[in-house]
Amino acid sequence: MRTRFSPIGLFDSGIGGLSVARQVMRMLPNENIVYFGDTARVPYGTKSPETVIGYSLQAAAFLRSQGVKLIIIACNTASAVALQAVQLASEVPVIGVIQPGAAAAVAATRNGRVGVIGTQGTVQSLAYQNAITDLSCSTSVLAQPCPLFVTLAEEGHTYHPGTLIFAREYLHPLLRQSIDTLILGCTHYPLLQPSISEVCGPAVTLIDPGIATAQEALHLLEHSEMRNSSTSLPRYEYYLTDLPLKFIEVGERFLGRKLDHVHRVQLDDLPNIF
Amino acid sequence: MRTRFSPIGLFDSGIGGLSVARQVMRMLPNENIVYFGDTARVPYGTKSPETVIGYSLQAAAFLRSQGVKLIIIACNTASAVALQAVQLASEVPVIGVIQPGAAAAVAATRNGRVGVIGTQGTVQSLAYQNAITDLSCSTSVLAQPCPLFVTLAEEGHTYHPGTLIFAREYLHPLLRQSIDTLILGCTHYPLLQPSISEVCGPAVTLIDPGIATAQEALHLLEHSEMRNSSTSLPRYEYYLTDLPLKFIEVGERFLGRKLDHVHRVQLDDLPNIF
Repeated sequence: MRTRFSPIGLFDSGIGGLSVARQVMRMLPNENIVYFGDTARVPYGTKSPETVIGYSLQAAAFLRSQGVKLIIIACNTASAVALQAVQLASEVPVIGVIQPGAAAAVAATRNGRVGVIGTQGTVQSLAYQNAITDLSCSTSVLAQPCPLFVTLAEEGHTYHPGTLIFAREYLHPLLRQSIDTLILGCTHYPLLQPSISEVCGPAVTLIDPGIATAQEALHLLEHSEMRNSSTSLPRYEYYLTDLPLKFIEVGERFLGRKLDHVHRVQLDDLPNIF
Repeated sequence: MRTRFSPIGLFDSGIGGLSVARQVMRMLPNENIVYFGDTARVPYGTKSPETVIGYSLQAAAFLRSQGVKLIIIACNTASAVALQAVQLASEVPVIGVIQPGAAAAVAATRNGRVGVIGTQGTVQSLAYQNAITDLSCSTSVLAQPCPLFVTLAEEGHTYHPGTLIFAREYLHPLLRQSIDTLILGCTHYPLLQPSISEVCGPAVTLIDPGIATAQEALHLLEHSEMRNSSTSLPRYEYYLTDLPLKFIEVGERFLGRKLDHVHRVQLDDLPNIF
């Protein structure tokens, strides 16, 4: 039985989704959270849609087995290709990061020219492009994959001459097309905000879909009267399919707080949905 | 029944091992080859040793099911942590890239100062360090992880201002310690040779363990009289656990030839060794 005290579940291909969890913790400070990171099979961004859908269904089934009241797909690639499949398979509400991120960008743009950066998988899926066009057919969208940004973020090269070189290379084509809004369409990218801001300049509004998604979760729980009103300290539990090298150091950088209660889940113990 | 006409099997976490396959094809042009790339779970370099051993045992079991006469672990991380486990599980000879690469470096150094670059997993395993010290206790080894090099190689940034910045950052600490030999201890790194050479200068000998490993395979097959003497065109078959985005383009860059006969293997169809 799901109650208002049940946890919110988030899943991601690895630890990038901790940057979304961070926003959920900030905006919904009373909620218990179960985070699932598929660190044994990360990254999803270069894998085929078929594979990403299979992994996402397993992650969602795991979260449901933990009794969550809401599932947040805290991964742009999985949101882009697997949202509908996960919604169809789940008896609890499921939200992704694409729709909230797209809505925030449409609200922010003044000249109707929005840029989107993300993994190859997210960009190729056209998910942001379609979501924005559905909301506002007069908004044009320019998308650009930034394959080096994930590793740059994980290595902590937030503001670094190498990061600036690649940020310029990736972003100049979008800036030349006069975008005034840029969606950071990968959960790793908000960590590179110092470099991205410098390259874009103050005239471009940066959109972190993690913030918009946390707001969407807040509205959804309020409207369904499922918001946790308890004043006791929330429980945060992290389940990872691998305990990778350096993951505590990197994870805490994404989460912005200490990473406690980390559990290892064997891939073979995941629900078999194939 | 394995005969001299049986194929050589190579496995890697993904497509990086194609740079080793390239050397095997060059040095053993009559041999049939079966290549297994675990693209659904790539990369191994940041994953825990336990996980890498499990995946490697599955890959080797798959190759044995294809009737290979020799297994080459064409992945530095897997060679570093899983060679012994795979040898114990296999009735055919198994070689990795570490031992041949270490021997080539010991033969090449004049001042006894060898550098090793690789993934976090390879460097932390101390596999190259131990292999070199076993061969020559007077040789000192300096190791450095280069986490950005894999993506830089896959993106084709062979010689690029961003690659040069990170190459300098990673290599200067080793060069300051006067290494005269550098092992490219990850199958992706030989593709960045133009940038690495420029940073190291002509006084440093670069060692590609893929070349030394192909030589080792040649000796092993000759000594066991298992070398294929057929003059008909060899068969090359590639089995991947995912068909990732851009893998043909990236794979052909590593392999140096057209990538035909690519098959998808479902993870669930792999031998279950867990």
